[in-house]
Amino acid sequence: MNKHIVGIDWGTSNRRAYLIDQSGACLAEHEDGQGMLAVGGRDKFGASLAGLLAAMQLPHDVPVILSGMVGSASGWQEVAYLDAAVPLVQLPQHLAAVTDPAWAGRCRIVPGYVYRAGAAADVMRGEETQLLGAIALGRRDGWIVLPGTHSKWVLLRDGVIQSFATYMTGELFAMLSAGGTLAAMMDGDSSDAEGFAIGLQQAARNEPLSNSLFRVRAGVVSRTAPAQLAAATVSGLLIGAEFAAARGAGQGITVIGSAALAARYDSAARHFGLPCTVLDPHQVYCSALSQFIQQA
Amino acid sequence: MNKHIVGIDWGTSNRRAYLIDQSGACLAEHEDGQGMLAVGGRDKFGASLAGLLAAMQLPHDVPVILSGMVGSASGWQEVAYLDAAVPLVQLPQHLAAVTDPAWAGRCRIVPGYVYRAGAAADVMRGEETQLLGAIALGRRDGWIVLPGTHSKWVLLRDGVIQSFATYMTGELFAMLSAGGTLAAMMDGDSSDAEGFAIGLQQAARNEPLSNSLFRVRAGVVSRTAPAQLAAATVSGLLIGAEFAAARGAGQGITVIGSAALAARYDSAARHFGLPCTVLDPHQVYCSALSQFIQQA
Repeated sequence: MNKHIVGIDWGTSNRRAYLIDQSGACLAEHEDGQGMLAVGGRDKFGASLAGLLAAMQLPHDVPVILSGMVGSASGWQEVAYLDAAVPLVQLPQHLAAVTDPAWAGRCRIVPGYVYRAGAAADVMRGEETQLLGAIALGRRDGWIVLPGTHSKWVLLRDGVIQSFATYMTGELFAMLSAGGTLAAMMDGDSSDAEGFAIGLQQAARNEPLSNSLFRVRAGVVSRTAPAQLAAATVSGLLIGAEFAAARGAGQGITVIGSAALAARYDSAARHFGLPCTVLDPHQVYCSALSQFIQQA
Repeated sequence: MNKHIVGIDWGTSNRRAYLIDQSGACLAEHEDGQGMLAVGGRDKFGASLAGLLAAMQLPHDVPVILSGMVGSASGWQEVAYLDAAVPLVQLPQHLAAVTDPAWAGRCRIVPGYVYRAGAAADVMRGEETQLLGAIALGRRDGWIVLPGTHSKWVLLRDGVIQSFATYMTGELFAMLSAGGTLAAMMDGDSSDAEGFAIGLQQAARNEPLSNSLFRVRAGVVSRTAPAQLAAATVSGLLIGAEFAAARGAGQGITVIGSAALAARYDSAARHFGLPCTVLDPHQVYCSALSQFIQQA
């Protein structure tokens, strides 16, 4: 009999579910806005999951793999972070069983990772699953970039995390657009090539962001720069800061992201002279799921 | 007869008025929340000013000097920026007469400054008046720091602006406290010495702010750092970025700011090994006003 599992990337604001078979083929996909915040409390995750399976017309006993913020202290069940030294291919051996009696035995949560460098720490939840998928697709070495609200830059060596850094790129862009000094001038196209390139150039100079951001405003009020470039310039400043900080990325980067975001990172990579390969996040996620199917 | 003038530092959210006599002595002071945003439109500034003079029990014909955002495109009347090369002591010759017939002849606006470096620009409105006051108090050379929502670092040489940079320190701190990933952990004391020092140390490493900010969160969720230090750490990251960017400030800095802010900058200056002198902003403003009294 062909075995199936459902994998759910259950984040803060959204969740996305994939049904795969033993060959790793994706048979069905479902996305909705029932992220961690919308579920409304720890004791509501079980019912929310049952609703998702029903919406996908799946049997109640299909094995389920969960990744993302669902495993955080504000999620269904807190799962301890793995240390970065644990090879990603060992993730299937570290799944945490959901203790809710209604789901025990057929629902497991993928642990996130913590990376410690001196007194500082960085964390991920959800991206480790994408990394496992990238490794399954042959990307065992070099920089993997997962752009978004909290962009991750992960350096892999032989399938093991050497280091990673998170940038609040998407969150800061949203905050600056929503209110404050810059918001009124940020209604232009944030992907405008000219404005984006201006931001990338400024980011390469490694000046403090709090200064570069104000200069976007100063450029507009002093009639030095047109207001319609401001949003793209801010995007370039934030994304450019990621590239400026990536040391030793001369070998190139692999970006796992939606078409729109990946295009923007590809453009930034060209600006910084880095070869860039793009992987489709759905394909990567399904590749990761196929690594879990024996454990599920 | 002893001549009097009123100076008003009319900002975005607040305004502060000072009555001085020819000797520069401050005879009265008034502060309220009738900043540019509260006034409610260009044609309402005259009535708002009349109300302020009435509240201070001053004659309607007292000469008035306005500085700050009141001279911006969103203020009473837009006044063109002066180029940074114009010596600050020449400010009294560049006052713009208010054209509103009810106030013409007795109300003038101090122009702001623009500083251009290549394709980039920075601007100030209001701080130029404080700089003139600092010069009148003998501070003609070195770094003048005006902390706040938009912190300014100004390098003076013989009373002329060599360069200046604005940092959105206060605004970013307020945004990050109000919402998003960090807000929930930012209810600790933002002036906590230990947390502030942690932020300063991280800022000195010149890593991207979007990464350093996320690490504050990562430290808390990975139980590496206590949540009650987060607010002070963020404050240290933002203020520390200003110090890390100040090149050649080995001679020390002069801070013009409220007691609470000045104490925080003084502490940061000690961390970065810089001598720091603090000037009282009210005294500095009245010193500037005394430079305008012949023109008013």
